[in-house]
Amino acid sequence: MGSMGLLGLFLGISAVLGVSPWNPTLAELLFLSPRTQLDASPFGSLWPLPQSLRISPERFRVAPNQFRIVHGPGSSEGPDCSLLQEAFRRYYEYMFGHSKWQNQDGGKSRYETELSSLQVIITSEDSECDKFPSITSDEAYQLQVSKPTAVLKAGKVWGVLRGLETFSQLLHEDDTGRYFVNESDITDFPRFAYRGILLDTSRHFLPLKVILTNLDAMAFNKFNVLHWHIVDDSSFPYQSTTFSELSAQGAYSPNHIYTPTDVHSVIEYARLRGIRVIPEFDTPGHTQSWRKGKMYILTPCYNGMHPSGSYGPVNPIFSATYDFMMKLFKEVSTVFPDDCIHLGGDEVDFSCWKSNPEVTEFMRKKGFGFWYSKLESFYVEKILDIVASVKKKSIVWQEVFDHGAKLQPDTIVEVWKSFYQLELAKVTAHGHQAILAAPWYLDLISYGEDWKNYYNVEPLSFIGSMSQKELVLGGEACLWGEYVDATNLTPRLWPRASAVAERLWSNRSVTDVSDAYNRLAQHRCHMLRRGIAAQPLYVGYCSHDFI
Amino acid sequence: MGSMGLLGLFLGISAVLGVSPWNPTLAELLFLSPRTQLDASPFGSLWPLPQSLRISPERFRVAPNQFRIVHGPGSSEGPDCSLLQEAFRRYYEYMFGHSKWQNQDGGKSRYETELSSLQVIITSEDSECDKFPSITSDEAYQLQVSKPTAVLKAGKVWGVLRGLETFSQLLHEDDTGRYFVNESDITDFPRFAYRGILLDTSRHFLPLKVILTNLDAMAFNKFNVLHWHIVDDSSFPYQSTTFSELSAQGAYSPNHIYTPTDVHSVIEYARLRGIRVIPEFDTPGHTQSWRKGKMYILTPCYNGMHPSGSYGPVNPIFSATYDFMMKLFKEVSTVFPDDCIHLGGDEVDFSCWKSNPEVTEFMRKKGFGFWYSKLESFYVEKILDIVASVKKKSIVWQEVFDHGAKLQPDTIVEVWKSFYQLELAKVTAHGHQAILAAPWYLDLISYGEDWKNYYNVEPLSFIGSMSQKELVLGGEACLWGEYVDATNLTPRLWPRASAVAERLWSNRSVTDVSDAYNRLAQHRCHMLRRGIAAQPLYVGYCSHDFI
Repeated sequence: MGSMGLLGLFLGISAVLGVSPWNPTLAELLFLSPRTQLDASPFGSLWPLPQSLRISPERFRVAPNQFRIVHGPGSSEGPDCSLLQEAFRRYYEYMFGHSKWQNQDGGKSRYETELSSLQVIITSEDSECDKFPSITSDEAYQLQVSKPTAVLKAGKVWGVLRGLETFSQLLHEDDTGRYFVNESDITDFPRFAYRGILLDTSRHFLPLKVILTNLDAMAFNKFNVLHWHIVDDSSFPYQSTTFSELSAQGAYSPNHIYTPTDVHSVIEYARLRGIRVIPEFDTPGHTQSWRKGKMYILTPCYNGMHPSGSYGPVNPIFSATYDFMMKLFKEVSTVFPDDCIHLGGDEVDFSCWKSNPEVTEFMRKKGFGFWYSKLESFYVEKILDIVASVKKKSIVWQEVFDHGAKLQPDTIVEVWKSFYQLELAKVTAHGHQAILAAPWYLDLISYGEDWKNYYNVEPLSFIGSMSQKELVLGGEACLWGEYVDATNLTPRLWPRASAVAERLWSNRSVTDVSDAYNRLAQHRCHMLRRGIAAQPLYVGYCSHDFI
Repeated sequence: MGSMGLLGLFLGISAVLGVSPWNPTLAELLFLSPRTQLDASPFGSLWPLPQSLRISPERFRVAPNQFRIVHGPGSSEGPDCSLLQEAFRRYYEYMFGHSKWQNQDGGKSRYETELSSLQVIITSEDSECDKFPSITSDEAYQLQVSKPTAVLKAGKVWGVLRGLETFSQLLHEDDTGRYFVNESDITDFPRFAYRGILLDTSRHFLPLKVILTNLDAMAFNKFNVLHWHIVDDSSFPYQSTTFSELSAQGAYSPNHIYTPTDVHSVIEYARLRGIRVIPEFDTPGHTQSWRKGKMYILTPCYNGMHPSGSYGPVNPIFSATYDFMMKLFKEVSTVFPDDCIHLGGDEVDFSCWKSNPEVTEFMRKKGFGFWYSKLESFYVEKILDIVASVKKKSIVWQEVFDHGAKLQPDTIVEVWKSFYQLELAKVTAHGHQAILAAPWYLDLISYGEDWKNYYNVEPLSFIGSMSQKELVLGGEACLWGEYVDATNLTPRLWPRASAVAERLWSNRSVTDVSDAYNRLAQHRCHMLRRGIAAQPLYVGYCSHDFI
């Protein structure tokens, strides 16, 4: 292991890969011979593997003090774009920052650079520099490394961000501390447009720093969605400006809240890395903490004729409920710029509704019979309408679809239960877009190299037409928070989530687990070097492994 | 959760607990009523639970600036004992150090103390201040908290260390930052004399800092043995002065070694906390890394008539092997002051020995037939003799016993395989002392509250006589290193190992999992406050949980 980079590669046979449904371009990948150092992948530490790459054995010296990342000629963007300026600075630091302490003898960078710059060229008129990323964001880029300059071309800033990450992964250091990049030619784009990480800040509060660190790690793995499961039964850390009592009463403590400033910081930090932030306000279940601030919002459960003192899901029978939700989602829709809001809708327990005589009466009036799933759908449809009225798209957990709620045409269904291939087939057969989470519940830890299970998933292995498969937007690695907080989140998530990252970005044909192991072991070392406490895949070490 | 301490307790019924085989004193425990704050144990955050305790509802204010830990009247020890001086300083810091930042208003400690000191009294003539702990070390102590001074009495420094930890756990802080200790009367001693943690520094190198941090955590949990599995197949980080080539060639890199100074630091840091350091030099298997420095030490494997290029266990047929081992163990016996050395002896693969014609010839000469376990025993017996000749006791993994080697009378057998009750019965029936590790392989992670499985183990549940059970010295939580390094070791080990700590220290009758949960959740918060990144047991938070 260690960070051996791409030393000793040479060009070998070539092959044509399959077609991705989301990027129906022919992707060409030139395979390289395995005549490399022991355990080194011919692709070095590239992760996720680009769609198409050619790496030559010729390598160019890069002297940190003579190398710059700059706006290239003809780019529609320049130093005014702070997203790019910050990215240039960040990637320069990732590539060379850690070598400062090594250069105490002053000699290691006293060599002539062969590569003087990476020129970044935005080719479309609107770079989207000040926009937020979205499901339609163009993340494609081309990267050509040749003497004396490397060129990174992309239509939008999002592609530049992905290309900078790739360029930084191409850089390798020899034993004397000198840097090299091999002559390369890369054309890259994601297989799936939605590549998410779910973090849960309700079961345990996650300090802002942990969230930001994980946004860094997400960028290193080309993830582009933070699904922020921000509130749940255990606590309500989201500080609402409209209903401040929700967090004042429902958070674990006054120290365990996300202020509007905190939330804004997360969103902007994510935007600068090409990452969307989709908040989840899960209802009608998973809402116990809401009642602390809003007494009337939950259904009182009954024990026979009398209230039992416990509470069930959101009370769906009062108009006050919907007035409250309207105001809350209006606020949420302005706080979170993303065009999607996740509404949850999972695991609604009907027993409390069944026990409540007012709910029973409501059911009778509505003619729902004993079908409590109809009451659930009644509720969810109203929430879907509210969200549509504030001009947002909804994402829901699969139960909402399974229980027959009439979804909006653009509602996205997130699949999380067993037999996910069947569910994906059903959801897409109904014309809905889908996100796959089921095989990627990373909180379900087990002994050994479980990342291989995540890696071996093929999201489109279900039976369905081409057009059905095009409805699968991507997937999500979920790290639910029951057993996870600031002490263990980062090593538990990384590099296990990296397996999901490659599955969602790289070509469908990239399935060689042993090559993946070699690249991922190095990629994990790179993450360590950048301050991410990513745990080891297996025995071994990194050349810079002390964190 | 949070650190609610012992607020609101009052004295309830009393009960007499069972007799411990190692401390055959009648232990009296006064149970307290559960009329406490929600989720608080009547025993606050005490972990492991003392053998006998009485806590009164009366509590005394402790003002940090007016409180001292001092040598008490009649103590045989004073300021000359740096072990105690350092312990006093350390525990003062644990108790009050974290409150500095809270006292910015200057007001919180402007109250009169009701408890002015903790007087520490060593009652025996030899405090053992400058000695190393051993299997016979007396860790018993008595702690009486009453106005205006608390008194901690112990025969030896080891009991003082345990008592200081208990006193620090009695301290609690109210919402305004004021400290209290309840009037208490505690008599305590360990149920088992051997309470270990195994760390593996071969599969992954562990930086010194990680080892020292975990010695801190061990002290917080009254563990008293670090079983240092220092070398194995993957790497040889132990820097031998006699055979420097072993680490020069066999360590992952020159940065991944433990110098004599490092080893000494670990031993002294451990000693100051009453913790023994037992090194394991596992042979004849698990030795691949040894060959890098000592070419001849391993058995060449054969493919038919020719050497295959791979190597098996230590070569048992040459006298050079034993000359080498004699020198190595002579060095090890002086570097490590503990009177035990762990010799390993697990998982010896016979296939390489079987393939080697010289070994076959040796077997024939010795009349071993096809019983390779006899060859293994031949080897192990010679190593046991070597270790006895350097005046150390040996610990071996159970295979050595299972395969019929003639052990020294004082050889200790460590039980690690399934059906451990049967094995304990067998080992002790043969008159050997035993250490139980089998149910406590903490590297075997799984989803959920697995600490309860560790907690529910009863080490003496096997069928055997009283005298057999007295041969069980204790047990060990093992964190093998295949998937563990500096990034994830501490949260993976703590507080899961704490479950083992209580099982090995507290009375056999202490088995209430729900009371354990409440205490352990608070104990984990205390560990967090002291800089140990112990992971959460389940949902919740600590009042000071940002690390």
